[in-house]
Amino acid sequence: MLRFGVIGCGYICHVHVNDIVNNLHGAKITAIYDVNKKSAEQVISEFKLGIQPSNSIDELIESPEVDAVLVFSKNDTHTEPILKSLAADKPVFTEKPLATTVEEAKQIVDAEVKKGKRLIQVGFMRRYDPYYQELKQTIDKGEIGAPLLGYCRHFAPAPPNDYYKTSDVINDTFVHEISVISWLFNDEYQSVQVQYARPNSTNTASELQEPQVATLKLKNGAIINTYLNINSHYGYEVKCQVIGETGIAELPDMPSTRIHKDEKIYNSVPIESGGRFAKAFQLEFQDFIDHVSKGEEPAGPSAWTGYMAAITCAKATESLQTNQVVDITFGEQPDIYK
Amino acid sequence: MLRFGVIGCGYICHVHVNDIVNNLHGAKITAIYDVNKKSAEQVISEFKLGIQPSNSIDELIESPEVDAVLVFSKNDTHTEPILKSLAADKPVFTEKPLATTVEEAKQIVDAEVKKGKRLIQVGFMRRYDPYYQELKQTIDKGEIGAPLLGYCRHFAPAPPNDYYKTSDVINDTFVHEISVISWLFNDEYQSVQVQYARPNSTNTASELQEPQVATLKLKNGAIINTYLNINSHYGYEVKCQVIGETGIAELPDMPSTRIHKDEKIYNSVPIESGGRFAKAFQLEFQDFIDHVSKGEEPAGPSAWTGYMAAITCAKATESLQTNQVVDITFGEQPDIYK
Amino acid sequence: MLRFGVIGCGYICHVHVNDIVNNLHGAKITAIYDVNKKSAEQVISEFKLGIQPSNSIDELIESPEVDAVLVFSKNDTHTEPILKSLAADKPVFTEKPLATTVEEAKQIVDAEVKKGKRLIQVGFMRRYDPYYQELKQTIDKGEIGAPLLGYCRHFAPAPPNDYYKTSDVINDTFVHEISVISWLFNDEYQSVQVQYARPNSTNTASELQEPQVATLKLKNGAIINTYLNINSHYGYEVKCQVIGETGIAELPDMPSTRIHKDEKIYNSVPIESGGRFAKAFQLEFQDFIDHVSKGEEPAGPSAWTGYMAAITCAKATESLQTNQVVDITFGEQPDIYK
Amino acid sequence: MLRFGVIGCGYICHVHVNDIVNNLHGAKITAIYDVNKKSAEQVISEFKLGIQPSNSIDELIESPEVDAVLVFSKNDTHTEPILKSLAADKPVFTEKPLATTVEEAKQIVDAEVKKGKRLIQVGFMRRYDPYYQELKQTIDKGEIGAPLLGYCRHFAPAPPNDYYKTSDVINDTFVHEISVISWLFNDEYQSVQVQYARPNSTNTASELQEPQVATLKLKNGAIINTYLNINSHYGYEVKCQVIGETGIAELPDMPSTRIHKDEKIYNSVPIESGGRFAKAFQLEFQDFIDHVSKGEEPAGPSAWTGYMAAITCAKATESLQTNQVVDITFGEQPDIYK
Repeated sequence: MLRFGVIGCGYICHVHVNDIVNNLHGAKITAIYDVNKKSAEQVISEFKLGIQPSNSIDELIESPEVDAVLVFSKNDTHTEPILKSLAADKPVFTEKPLATTVEEAKQIVDAEVKKGKRLIQVGFMRRYDPYYQELKQTIDKGEIGAPLLGYCRHFAPAPPNDYYKTSDVINDTFVHEISVISWLFNDEYQSVQVQYARPNSTNTASELQEPQVATLKLKNGAIINTYLNINSHYGYEVKCQVIGETGIAELPDMPSTRIHKDEKIYNSVPIESGGRFAKAFQLEFQDFIDHVSKGEEPAGPSAWTGYMAAITCAKATESLQTNQVVDITFGEQPDIYK
Repeated sequence: MLRFGVIGCGYICHVHVNDIVNNLHGAKITAIYDVNKKSAEQVISEFKLGIQPSNSIDELIESPEVDAVLVFSKNDTHTEPILKSLAADKPVFTEKPLATTVEEAKQIVDAEVKKGKRLIQVGFMRRYDPYYQELKQTIDKGEIGAPLLGYCRHFAPAPPNDYYKTSDVINDTFVHEISVISWLFNDEYQSVQVQYARPNSTNTASELQEPQVATLKLKNGAIINTYLNINSHYGYEVKCQVIGETGIAELPDMPSTRIHKDEKIYNSVPIESGGRFAKAFQLEFQDFIDHVSKGEEPAGPSAWTGYMAAITCAKATESLQTNQVVDITFGEQPDIYK
Repeated sequence: MLRFGVIGCGYICHVHVNDIVNNLHGAKITAIYDVNKKSAEQVISEFKLGIQPSNSIDELIESPEVDAVLVFSKNDTHTEPILKSLAADKPVFTEKPLATTVEEAKQIVDAEVKKGKRLIQVGFMRRYDPYYQELKQTIDKGEIGAPLLGYCRHFAPAPPNDYYKTSDVINDTFVHEISVISWLFNDEYQSVQVQYARPNSTNTASELQEPQVATLKLKNGAIINTYLNINSHYGYEVKCQVIGETGIAELPDMPSTRIHKDEKIYNSVPIESGGRFAKAFQLEFQDFIDHVSKGEEPAGPSAWTGYMAAITCAKATESLQTNQVVDITFGEQPDIYK
Repeated sequence: MLRFGVIGCGYICHVHVNDIVNNLHGAKITAIYDVNKKSAEQVISEFKLGIQPSNSIDELIESPEVDAVLVFSKNDTHTEPILKSLAADKPVFTEKPLATTVEEAKQIVDAEVKKGKRLIQVGFMRRYDPYYQELKQTIDKGEIGAPLLGYCRHFAPAPPNDYYKTSDVINDTFVHEISVISWLFNDEYQSVQVQYARPNSTNTASELQEPQVATLKLKNGAIINTYLNINSHYGYEVKCQVIGETGIAELPDMPSTRIHKDEKIYNSVPIESGGRFAKAFQLEFQDFIDHVSKGEEPAGPSAWTGYMAAITCAKATESLQTNQVVDITFGEQPDIYK
């Protein structure tokens, strides 16, 4: 039974802890920490964990009751617990992003490379989504020939409370596209361009300029346009269409009761994003548990993937500011990630 | 230029005359008659026909200005003009039904057989519908193997003004299914059963019992269930699904703008039935014009088809009354229909 | 931790034991029995259960290590272990059917009624399927008005090895439709009729006459046609369309990568039935575990449901033989099932 | 009866002459000219026109038997007959493009402006397509709010015989997108960018670099990406998706028999482009006939539209060569086009 120490007790913590307790096998929570102790106590109570909150990150990471560390804290606070977990030689799962600056992401990669083996998995859960998996297999089996073009939509019905600002569209929304597109297309990014489209007059978040069109170009020449829209109103939808040499493959619409009513034939689109990747969250974590509990390196998205995403996000932000296509270089991929 | 004499100036007359004047080639209207002279005058005026109404059916049929006769009058008044057209040796197109009793339908067939050639075409337009045509070809090419089962829906949003009574569901709605199913399945009917389903509480036509389930069985054993619903509320829809030995083929949903809005992905379903078979009406009439103007026999649905439909409708009505499966026999098909 | 004793180690045993061990929470296997000891040993080994096979049904049921009994043995061997579990006052989950004769099903119901509380759950897993659940909610919320008509397809690509005979189409295939339709429509069956359609010439199972059309009529008049086809060739598909007073609601097609290729736009249909109800199997068992481990009565399909299904199957078989519509009566529903 | 003089007897001439003779009303062909007299004679014979070929463009245009001129000759030979028709004060329908250079297009516009009224219609038939019409109405009624983003695909299965070179992708394929997008979005173009994507290794036309991604930006900020692919292999498809402030509207897939077979549910995609816009060609011409025969100005796409398309194509070609976003300016729209 793998013993997890959890750092950070917000929304995503509840999702993962609920899965670990109720839906997955082979792991349990033995330590938990949040800067706000009440938050930790609430999670302990809700999931009947029967433990006491840890008093510090160090105490939690160094605890002999903790085999591996889960980092669910705020985006800009991931670096410290990750580096300390590496120092303690403990596997660590961190929610995305790996870090909010390229420098910190590089620092983490360097530290892991020095260990000589992978200890980190980053929570890019889309790669575990059964629909993305099937899409990937369709491409990899050559059913549509080499992938040449892509078109993606990442639409949310409305910006979360006071949450989104313009940069969030890149760091919290576009980053998911970044994480899957190079994986689907089996190639690295060459350049990125992000543009504002005509502003949505219904947008109530004054600091948020969107919708945005983010264009990724791969080294092999493939071009992928991603439409990022946080004010879709109609619902939450993630779409991905890959155009290959001999055909097209795309994610299906999510299934729901098909209804004929009121002069329409329709299917529902959910307003909530919660359900779309529920299965992916579970598969991601079970995979982490399965590998780590056998003493193996994590097999999911690596710190290098997180580092490449950090660079791509930084270049995307630069593109928005300069209104130019921005080239991307990642440097040599270290051996432990090959 | 084929010269038509038109008998009956109601709704369907307007559809066909409009097509002949504006959408088809090779024919014109040279005589027109209605029991209500005003109705005839209105059609003449609306389509600028530049002719005078005829004073009687006989005058119209015998006119040297008339090459062929079109019968669009009330359902129970088709027999007289058809028989007189045969007597005058003039081709005749009649709207369905051929006749409202089996006896009259038989009388018409006998008269045509005596002529030794086909002069009559019955307005079962569905066989000219491009979607039914494609479905038929899919079956005939063997793409789904021999057809074993069928499922059809004929749904109207609401009963026309005070028009439908229970028997109309069979004689005006089910009759269209009867006309296409044996054609699609390439076999004759063996039996028919019609049942009332749970009554629709929203039904405002007090004499109309529906929805109805009509089950046709073919001589080869194939079973086809047809759902007849004149209070669908949601729209007008005609569906047909044929299940063969190795696959299924079915009519597509009618295309319309696909919309994502209000937590739905939807396509419109029309409330009006008008558009669905507009093309079929045109192709049906162009085919009649093309054959008759070359001196050929009409190639569309024959009086024998109309006679078989009349028998099947009568047996369907008997089934509703007796609550039994009713066997159907048609007698030997005369040579001119082979 | 609820302790299960498992009786019968065939295909469906593997499915459920795998779920209990790997996908569900709150239960474990503490005893296992099969008439063929090797089969029990194989399951023990495959799932590392670390136990010894029981020597008899009695030994297993009476074991103090067993809190509840799972019956996965052959269809006609369910009655004995169910009755013995009742006698031992232990909750019992049995795969469908409850019993293969109406008499045995009645015997079980009577025994349970005598206990004065529900102990039995029958494995009609479809009621736990998220798609059927959503369909049911759509109906119950009144979104399509009262349900008047239904159309269902249960299609398998080919008969399992030498397995299916004509009666299996009713007892193993149609029984699933029976279990969900009255639940969806919120009413009891009034009559049933089953007919053979045109025989499929590709059918290689000489004793199997199919496809079959099974027509269920409810007390409220609703009519539901179910097409049962064990030689679809194209794939495994379960469809259900419910037509209400104001609209239609139906199960969605199962989602898969949408592909444009070779002059087609297509989605895959699986050949294997395994995946379709995988989630339903899990939800069904978790629900049984959750209720029983709290000392509550099982909340899933009851012995009474199993008894009604047994009667309906018997009447369906009678209909096939007599070629008649057969009325159905169930008697008064005992209080413990209300 | 409007009398047409036809110039140019290639493929598109056959399409239009066939429609005029067989599918439309109110016009006939009274003169015909081709640089290759045999081609003209062939059309005369095929459609039984009963006329003699004209000996020159001038003879045809000046003929008192000709009320209006139809220009179907090669792309770079439209200017002369158009200018001469204007000089002769005769309405002229020209296939797209209006002209192959911006200078010639400007010359035509200037000549028409000098006449003080519209005489020219350009064959951008998509605006008459019922599906584009419905899409346009959906947007104009405000059903999806203001249009912010667009995504279009124009895919052909393979390049026509030795026909396509890189510039054709812009001048023959992209030009259709140019003609509809500003119409759909109700705004003028601000800039254009065209990029080559990863080359298709199956491409056998050595001079053709594609697929191409063409990005149009409107003055209001809306961004539309168009994917141009002449080697789709899977079929001919034209798609257009418009994303508005509150929803998405898109062209439907073209309807065809829906088939379940071979582990797939599929609809056909045609290889031939012919059928897709057959109705649009007819509606376009009937509209031209209806207006011109009443002495009205043509109501379809104007010379100004053709001129704007010529400029946009030239800028698109410049973008391909310079690898830059290219700004577009059209100058002031003359009054006769408002």
